[in-house]
Amino acid sequence: MSEPTTPRLLRALAGETLDRPPVWFMRQAGRSLPEYRELRTRAQDFISFCHDPEMAAEATLQPMRRFPLDAAIVFADILLIPRALGQKVWFETGEGPRLGPLPPIEAMADQVEASTGRLAEIGETLKIVRAKLEPERALIGFAGAPWTVATYMLEGRGSDRSAARTYAYQHPDELDALLDVLVEATARYLVMQAKSGAQVLKLFESWAEHLAEDVFERIVVKPHTAIIEKVRAAGIDTPFIGFPRGAGALVETYAARVPVEAVALDTQASAVMGQRIQDGGKTIQGALDNLLLRAGGPALDARIDGLIAQWNDGPYIFNLGHGVLPDTPVENIERAIRRVTGN
Amino acid sequence: MSEPTTPRLLRALAGETLDRPPVWFMRQAGRSLPEYRELRTRAQDFISFCHDPEMAAEATLQPMRRFPLDAAIVFADILLIPRALGQKVWFETGEGPRLGPLPPIEAMADQVEASTGRLAEIGETLKIVRAKLEPERALIGFAGAPWTVATYMLEGRGSDRSAARTYAYQHPDELDALLDVLVEATARYLVMQAKSGAQVLKLFESWAEHLAEDVFERIVVKPHTAIIEKVRAAGIDTPFIGFPRGAGALVETYAARVPVEAVALDTQASAVMGQRIQDGGKTIQGALDNLLLRAGGPALDARIDGLIAQWNDGPYIFNLGHGVLPDTPVENIERAIRRVTGN
Repeated sequence: MSEPTTPRLLRALAGETLDRPPVWFMRQAGRSLPEYRELRTRAQDFISFCHDPEMAAEATLQPMRRFPLDAAIVFADILLIPRALGQKVWFETGEGPRLGPLPPIEAMADQVEASTGRLAEIGETLKIVRAKLEPERALIGFAGAPWTVATYMLEGRGSDRSAARTYAYQHPDELDALLDVLVEATARYLVMQAKSGAQVLKLFESWAEHLAEDVFERIVVKPHTAIIEKVRAAGIDTPFIGFPRGAGALVETYAARVPVEAVALDTQASAVMGQRIQDGGKTIQGALDNLLLRAGGPALDARIDGLIAQWNDGPYIFNLGHGVLPDTPVENIERAIRRVTGN
Repeated sequence: MSEPTTPRLLRALAGETLDRPPVWFMRQAGRSLPEYRELRTRAQDFISFCHDPEMAAEATLQPMRRFPLDAAIVFADILLIPRALGQKVWFETGEGPRLGPLPPIEAMADQVEASTGRLAEIGETLKIVRAKLEPERALIGFAGAPWTVATYMLEGRGSDRSAARTYAYQHPDELDALLDVLVEATARYLVMQAKSGAQVLKLFESWAEHLAEDVFERIVVKPHTAIIEKVRAAGIDTPFIGFPRGAGALVETYAARVPVEAVALDTQASAVMGQRIQDGGKTIQGALDNLLLRAGGPALDARIDGLIAQWNDGPYIFNLGHGVLPDTPVENIERAIRRVTGN
């Protein structure tokens, strides 16, 4: 058993079943909060904002002041890594990310070691936040998982990923080489985050959907496993949360094969699948519908109670199945968190 | 055991494990075939094409002449029902369906009985095809499932369904009323199709993805069950294939709860989930990646062999996980079908 001051999130990740689950929300920091929208106006562009430790730390801490959350997650973006590897990345207002042409794989491979240095500000953000955060609240670091990051690198923008999925069939060797570069850069980045104060590491595989099982094994299971093994080989025992969003029934394959401490479930996860993953010895996280959080009302309360009833007999972290939507009323976010924490 | 002339598809749907699975492909008729593209130019618009029995029968039969398929599926569209209920529906070239304002639910409820008469041409198409098709090849009728059709009716076009999913939370009673109208109209439409020669009925729930389990029970499981019970109450024992596309782990809930004879699996279905559904007494169908069919090559052959190896120890129908893409080379379609049939 852990110390009473051990953050609730770390206790759940160590496999403890708790009186009530720890709670945090994906995108708890960001556009749903008016103070973030104000803060954001002080930076020229989104990438600069993420690379400014004072501003990013402030964005990370804003929801912690408003809500009784059990964890903070560093304010950053999954596309900082391709930028650090030499691909141009920018954000078009209201349209999302844009990326320049994919550099040659060998050129990016040569940049892997240097890329971690180019992400040093994210380590600074973590140090600032950890120094200001109460000890009973955990700090989460994260990275985009290789396949998801590769879809943006290959397609140059958000998409339905059909071009990237076709590339996986037509150019398997090239894709594997790109994933290898990303595995190495991501492992180093996460080691740096852990050394800078991150107590939990999360891998966001935002685009695990629509993949056939054999492809999923090759481009999701294998790279996630490789990253975690590399981080462990560096002497870091920080727990991992893996989030294969949209993987459907393949989430169970993921849970059985990838050495994460917890599996984050998306909105459509079934109660029994979550229970089977808990029975298999892993913590689960999820999976309130972000549309219901935005809609609010008695259905929101009922669903929160239902999720806790179905999953809190094992190690469980309360969260959404996807990120907080920008137009979610702040009252709904607060109401949901307080319903979980009971205060 | 069935007669030797019983179509292979019907044997699989009766629960038989066969030496090789029957094979058909979603969207086997349509834009991937040059003869369809030629035929399509003879009709003013897509809706008129679907309502012309001679042309629709010809489109249905075109792939049957080219390929050794085990089944034909009537050429029609899931949006013929809302049109028959009084909502305006049209297709913008290259952009997909557009729908006019949603009529009042009560007005549509009054049109349910008449709607089946307005779909009489689809029955004529089935009669023409059944008369021309060899007896060992089965004929499939279909309808869009209520929730999927409702998303188009509510949003007026194809979309990410977030408006419809939000409507499900904010206006549950109105949505239930709309689904009830669609259940009744769909059941009547399918009874008419069975009486016109359809030997199998398929329910396409194309947008079962991203739904929370409680919502999935209410808007997918319940309406599908109601439709099948109504068709059975009308004295029709035609087997059903249900396709809850994108439902992930909830496909198992669907298989356990909805009285379909077969569950169609999408691209990301896991081998073990399919096997569990077979062990539960149902036939499964699926789930070759349509992107791999388009890409072709040795990876296509290997995956076809892999799917048969993982699922043909139980009742299994070979198909794609989604429809044939319009730019799929005809050679790849033929190669894939012949690899399954062995001729």
